[in-house]
Parts: sequence; structure tokens; C-alpha cells
Amino acid sequence: MERQVDVVVIGAGPAGEVLAGRLAERGGRRVAIVERDLVGGECSFYACMPSKALLRPAELLREVARVPGAAEALTGTLDVSAVLARRDQVINRLDDSEQLPWLAARNIELVRGHARLDGERRVRVGDDVLLAREAVVIAVGSGALIPPIPGLGEVSAWSNREITTATEVPRRLIVLGGGVVGVEMAQAWASLGSQVTVIEALERLVAREEPLAAQLLRDSLEALGVRVLTGVRASAAGRTGEQITVTLESGETVVGDRLLVAVGRRPLTDDLGLETLGLEPRGHVEVDDHLCVVGAPGLYAVGDVNGRSLLTHSGKYQARIAADHILGERACARTDAQGAPRVVFTDPQIAAVGLTLEAARQAGISAQAFDLPTGATAGASFHGRGAPGVSRFVVDLEREVLVGVTFVGAEVADFLQAATIAIVAGVPLTTLAHAIAPFPTRSELWLKFLEAYESAQGTSLHAGQGPVTAGARDAGR
Amino acid sequence: MERQVDVVVIGAGPAGEVLAGRLAERGGRRVAIVERDLVGGECSFYACMPSKALLRPAELLREVARVPGAAEALTGTLDVSAVLARRDQVINRLDDSEQLPWLAARNIELVRGHARLDGERRVRVGDDVLLAREAVVIAVGSGALIPPIPGLGEVSAWSNREITTATEVPRRLIVLGGGVVGVEMAQAWASLGSQVTVIEALERLVAREEPLAAQLLRDSLEALGVRVLTGVRASAAGRTGEQITVTLESGETVVGDRLLVAVGRRPLTDDLGLETLGLEPRGHVEVDDHLCVVGAPGLYAVGDVNGRSLLTHSGKYQARIAADHILGERACARTDAQGAPRVVFTDPQIAAVGLTLEAARQAGISAQAFDLPTGATAGASFHGRGAPGVSRFVVDLEREVLVGVTFVGAEVADFLQAATIAIVAGVPLTTLAHAIAPFPTRSELWLKFLEAYESAQGTSLHAGQGPVTAGARDAGR
Repeated sequence: MERQVDVVVIGAGPAGEVLAGRLAERGGRRVAIVERDLVGGECSFYACMPSKALLRPAELLREVARVPGAAEALTGTLDVSAVLARRDQVINRLDDSEQLPWLAARNIELVRGHARLDGERRVRVGDDVLLAREAVVIAVGSGALIPPIPGLGEVSAWSNREITTATEVPRRLIVLGGGVVGVEMAQAWASLGSQVTVIEALERLVAREEPLAAQLLRDSLEALGVRVLTGVRASAAGRTGEQITVTLESGETVVGDRLLVAVGRRPLTDDLGLETLGLEPRGHVEVDDHLCVVGAPGLYAVGDVNGRSLLTHSGKYQARIAADHILGERACARTDAQGAPRVVFTDPQIAAVGLTLEAARQAGISAQAFDLPTGATAGASFHGRGAPGVSRFVVDLEREVLVGVTFVGAEVADFLQAATIAIVAGVPLTTLAHAIAPFPTRSELWLKFLEAYESAQGTSLHAGQGPVTAGARDAGR
Repeated sequence: MERQVDVVVIGAGPAGEVLAGRLAERGGRRVAIVERDLVGGECSFYACMPSKALLRPAELLREVARVPGAAEALTGTLDVSAVLARRDQVINRLDDSEQLPWLAARNIELVRGHARLDGERRVRVGDDVLLAREAVVIAVGSGALIPPIPGLGEVSAWSNREITTATEVPRRLIVLGGGVVGVEMAQAWASLGSQVTVIEALERLVAREEPLAAQLLRDSLEALGVRVLTGVRASAAGRTGEQITVTLESGETVVGDRLLVAVGRRPLTDDLGLETLGLEPRGHVEVDDHLCVVGAPGLYAVGDVNGRSLLTHSGKYQARIAADHILGERACARTDAQGAPRVVFTDPQIAAVGLTLEAARQAGISAQAFDLPTGATAGASFHGRGAPGVSRFVVDLEREVLVGVTFVGAEVADFLQAATIAIVAGVPLTTLAHAIAPFPTRSELWLKFLEAYESAQGTSLHAGQGPVTAGARDAGR
């Protein structure tokens, strides 16, 4: 049966939901959203949310141990079953029914099933065809990438889905991949009692981030008993009874009870019908800055599937832009790609935005980095005391603005918004010098950075900012 | 004996130290700093630092109780003696010797004693006279204001000095004054076991802040067992044996073992020799935006003593400006007065910057407030979960910029820097809409605010921002 709506959104993860909601709320559009799995998406059930639920309790207890007076109250230990129970609550036991009223309140029609594009502004779901008056939006997200390692298909390897929803603590966990998913899960499960080995092919963990962040993270994982192998490739995997063996190119073997594969993501474009629009049915769906799919009238793609920035918040941002563009605005995405903020919720946390020093220099920017211990403030006497941490501010010396900031330390995630605003708005350092940081908070890192900059440049950020009241000036000298 | 230096700084609190350090480091100036009490000042020994040391452990344990899995590990209680011992460590047992190497490393001469101005660019300390080639800077700070309440002088009332350094937990503590010092100490000592009564003459606590913050704070204090009396004046105080009685204007009496007077601050200008420069020796020392004392050539005043903003960080900011001005720059203070950031380190914390809604409207700004529960983000599932909190964003509707932000909630102090930068730099909301907040952090409050603004205004902050690539646009519709 054919029926018509204004917009069809394929995929009800965070990006798809935000987009549908905005079209309905702002534009009064009639929207159908198609989902073959859980409304709320990978993020809500198998990624961001359960991983944080697994990480937070142990992180918090580590902070308590650093605070005399509170530390003494900590006479028990992390309650693993309570952690898992809370995680189950966060993911609502993989039941998406609590997400539905939000859609219903916006009069968004939920269509359960697998959607296939069927030519321009046509989407087939089973026997039904949805006709989109205005646009079709692909928001199908990504799934775990399984690398072509011999034997991997036969060992029942886990992806982010199984590890974030595991109901028992693996005794020995092998993590293939030291990116964000890999290190977060290594930290979480090591804290919960697993013996963890991380195998990363590149020379360092979280390779996208500043090397100093990777090093501190590695130290922290190792202090927790995690074995970290970098610059090492897996060449084969096999199973003997309950035991999984990963063979490295060096010939060494790593054995475990569970194997998490977290080497990357792939866009879920298989069997999406892209070919009915003359598009290549493999890899990312290429979009322009309005999130319009290149070469396909009436088609948009938001979130992981377009490959711009595989982060939930980037997908939500794109959804806002795409929705507004569909509604006739000249909305344009400009901060979701390389410079999007990103947080690794390990302990220490890594919170970064914009360019790393290396990326800035590769981009031809006359960049200089200013590194400070994250604990170098009076505020750090009370919060994150003695925890490892370094923060890096990357300055474009010509324009005298920040182009990248990385905070590494205990609970620094919410430090990031200040840096994001400074970078996105291009706030000159001479203006940042007037953004007083309260004492005694850890935000005084900003002051420390500005002082380090002044000292290195032999300059004052307050110089020449008059208005000079000549009388006062002369009187005062 | 007379001797000459470049600059004489009177008072080695945070403002004086920063100023002396900057003059020495940036300008190579020969600086003498005079201190009659502890180097490091009120803030380091009797205010910001010890108060946070007293507050933090209990705050942290309240957070632990909100996190399943961690809460179960909390089988003991707050260790009061460990809290006090840590506080003693933070204030170095009122010994300032650890502050001295910092001065020495900058070749700053420390002169111990009471300084009196002695005419233009002359400062007398005991028998010595310091001649300042360039400038004299007053950075003497403030002390507790003792109100003229009959009997108050005879009851050995405590100021911030005694309460922050107390070595025993008062059984019953009366707090006169519900400003920042009063509420922080009420919370700290109630957490440590005191039975606390707060008496505030105004209609609400922390009257400078948004009323919604005051209400949440009051609720929290009351939940902790603190008795909060507002709109009530003390008319007399008296002592019977060990017991102190405060009589209210209503006739009611409040009894306790200790009485903290925290009704305000007074600049420490008594016996400073201001009259030798023809200045009024009472009240604040009036300065211009370069921190030059009005009507006194060669004289500056920074920090609490000038009355612009009685906050350590404001004093440090002024010190930077004044130092640069002395060094010949056109440096000018523009964000230290009404809009300076301020944090009340209670639980919930109150972190605010810029104008309250009421202050904005009084200033003739077409202001509108957007209030959101601080817990209205996915990030709040993991941090500050279920804790009371509201955040207010005050927008200048004409300029479409923020003019004030108040966060109330668990551990929100470091949320503030983002707001401070946005306000100081005047970042348009249309730009803030591109400052993506990471998921799942509590910083998504920013997104919630922007959505609330769009919804209220019926607008899109992304509208009309293209460069429109006409081809893509048309193709995409």
C-alpha cells in the first residue's frame, strides 16, 4: 500500500529522532520514522549510555579515595551487581517502549521494519511504500566493523552490543582495538573485575587524540592491571572449548574468555536500496554541508552513516541543520566534522575539541601548544587531587585564537564547553583574558594557559585595550 | 631608613601577590610587598581554601549516595577528624612559609609589618620608609564587618577566621548572615555534625543571586537540618556561661555555643595613612578602570579594598590589569564588577556570571530568562542524578546574546567558564548553536537552552546562515 507523508526518516536513533522531532515541532510536518530495531538507537542501548553506566561508579570511587575525610567512609567495595542493575535500568532492559510517547506527542508515525529506498522520495517497508512529499532522510547509523582476520567469524566475538549489555563479568577479556569503545570497555570491565588485554594495531591508544592523552590513558589502564599492546596486529583467532585465542603477527598468543572487536564502525548501508537512486550501495553516504546527499534530489543523510563525525552529538547537530534545511532555511553545518567535541569517559577522562597540534600544523596553521598539568590549580586541591592529567591548548599564533583544546584528567568532560565556544566563536585570546575564572575552581586552568601564553610570547593580553582616560593614566604613573 | 624600589605593594593576599609577580616577571621591576599577617592572605588561610576543604568531602559523599554500585561501597561515615586534618594541611596550619619561595624566586622583597601611606609614593613600615619610583598599590583586602548589635562585642563572636579554622565541631552554631560565607559555613558544619541556625535580615539567602537559587539552597540546608530564618533581624546578643543567646526583633531567642558573624566585609583601610594623600580614610578606596585611585597620583588599589568585586578571582584579575598599567600598557578592567563569575560551594552549588534577570531588567535590557532543570540531560543520569538543580539563562532579546547565567546543581562550578566566555565575548546565540555539546555530558544543558529559546521565539538559530550552494540546495529539496 502506498501512502504519503511530508518526510520519511529511516532510523530512529538520536539523529533520526531529533530530526523528526524538529520537523514536527518547528515545521508542523507529518513525519514517518522507520526503525527495524530499537527506537533510541545504538547510542541509547548499546553504546554511550550503558558504557557510561558501567564506568561511572568506579570512577567516582576513585575520586572518593583521593579526598581525605570521604575516603574513610569507603569501607566497602564497588557493588558489581548493583552496577549492572543500574546499567539495565539505563537501557530499560532493551525495551524501547519508554521512547514511544515522545514520538507520539509529536504526532510522528513510527513504522517498524526494514526500510529500503525505492527511487526518488520513495521508501519501501515490507509491502508498504511511503511517499515523501519533501524529503527522505537516511539516519541508519553504523555497526561494528569486523576486520578480515582469519577465524574471527568462528569465535563468537562480541561487538559493542554484547559488551555493553553483558550480564556477567568476563574473567579474561580480550579487546581488539584501542579506540574509544575499546578503552572505555577495557576500563569499565577491568574495574568490574575482568582481566583485560587490549590489542591495538596503531602505535598508540585513541590515536585521533593528542599523544599525551594516549600516554596518560595507557598508564591509567596499566595501573588498573590492563595489559596494553600497541603497534601489534592480530593475525588469527580461534576457539578451544570456552577459550578464545588471538594470535598476533609476532606469533604470540593472547587467550581469554571473551573477545570484543572494536576496531571501527561501518555505515549500515547494506540493503538500503541506494542503488535505486543511482548511488553506490557501499561505504558512507556522501553529503554536502546541508546534509543533502550528493547527486540525489530529495535525499538527506545524518549521523554516523554520512561519515562526517561518528558521534551522537554530531548526529543530533546535523539533524537540526538538516531539519531546518528541509524547512527552507539556509542552515549549514560547519562544526560537526574534524573539530567536533569528543569525550573519552575513561579515568582520566579525555575531553577534546578542535584540532590536535599535529592536525593544526598539517592544516598549515602556525600552531603552538601550551601544556599544563590539569591539577595545577587551587581548585584541584579539592577535586581530582593528585589524579593524572595534562591539558593542552593549541593556539593559532597568527590569528591569536584557540584552534584546539584537550583536557585530560579526572571528570573534565564539562570543562569542554568553554573551549568549544571559544573555538567555534573564534574568541581572541585578548578577550579570553577578560573571562575571569572563579577561584578556587579547576577552571583556573584557563588563567594558567593565558599566563603561559603571555610568558612564552613575552606579551600582555591586556596591552593596548584602553579606552585610556589620559588623566587617570598620567595621575596613576 | 629610607630606601627605593620600583613599586610597593601593601598586602600579600592573592591580588597583591599576582600583581607583584607580574611586575617582577613581565616588567623586571623591583618590588617590595608588605604584609602584617600571613603571606597568601585571607583567601588562602581563612576563606576560600579552608571553606572548600570543609565542604568537599561531604559533598562528594552525597554524590556517591546517588550512584548505585558506588553507594553500596559507602558503609562508613564522613571522618570528621580527617576532614579537619586535611583542612589544616590546606592552610598549612596557618604557617605561610610555603608561600615565600614563590616571592623569592621573583626577587620580590617581603617586608613584614604594618604599612602606612606617608605621602605620595611613600610607605612607612615601622621605622623604615619605602620610596616607590613608579607606584604604590593598596591590596590590603577586607575583614569581617561587625554590625552594631547591642551585646555583640561581649560574646566573643566568631568571624570567618575562627569558623574556617575551628578545631572542634560546635554543637550548636548560630550563623548571623545568609550570604556566601554564612551559607557555606552553615552547610559545612551541619555536615560535620553541628546543629545550625542561620539568621538573615533580607528576605532570602544569597540575595545577590537569582531567587530560584536561593530557594533550592534553602531547601537543601533545611534537609540537612539547618534552621533557616530569613527576613529576621537580630536585636541583641548575650552570653550566659558557655551559651550564647541572640535575640531577634520578634522577641524570639536563638541559643548556641558559637556565633558566627558573616553579615558582610569592610575594607581594611583603618590606619592606612590615606589621609596623608588627602583621601578619606574610611570605606572603599575608589578607583577607575585602570585601578588607579581617584585623585591620588601614583596610587593603585586592587582587590576587596576597592569594593568593585569582593572575590579572589576578581582581585587577581585587577592585579593583572593594574600591573600592566603600571608597566605602561593601556590595560583596562571591564569584567570585574557586576558581571564577575561567582560560585557558592554549597550542595547544590550556585555558579553564576553576569546579570540576574532582575538586574538585567533594571539595567534597561530587554531580558528574558530560560529556566531548565539542571538534571534535564542524559549526562545527569550519571552525575548529580536526582540532585536538586535549576539553571537559568538570561538573554538580551534585542542583541540575541546571553547577559547572565546561573547554574544550580551538584558540582556545577566548572560549567561556568563556558557562560563567562559567551557573555564576555558577546557570542551571538546563532553562533552558540554551532558549539556542539558532547553527549552524554551535562553540558547538553546548552542545547536544551538553545532549543527552549528557539521554541519560545518560534525561530531557528540556524536560519539564514548558509553560504547557500544553490545546486545542492535545489537538488536537496
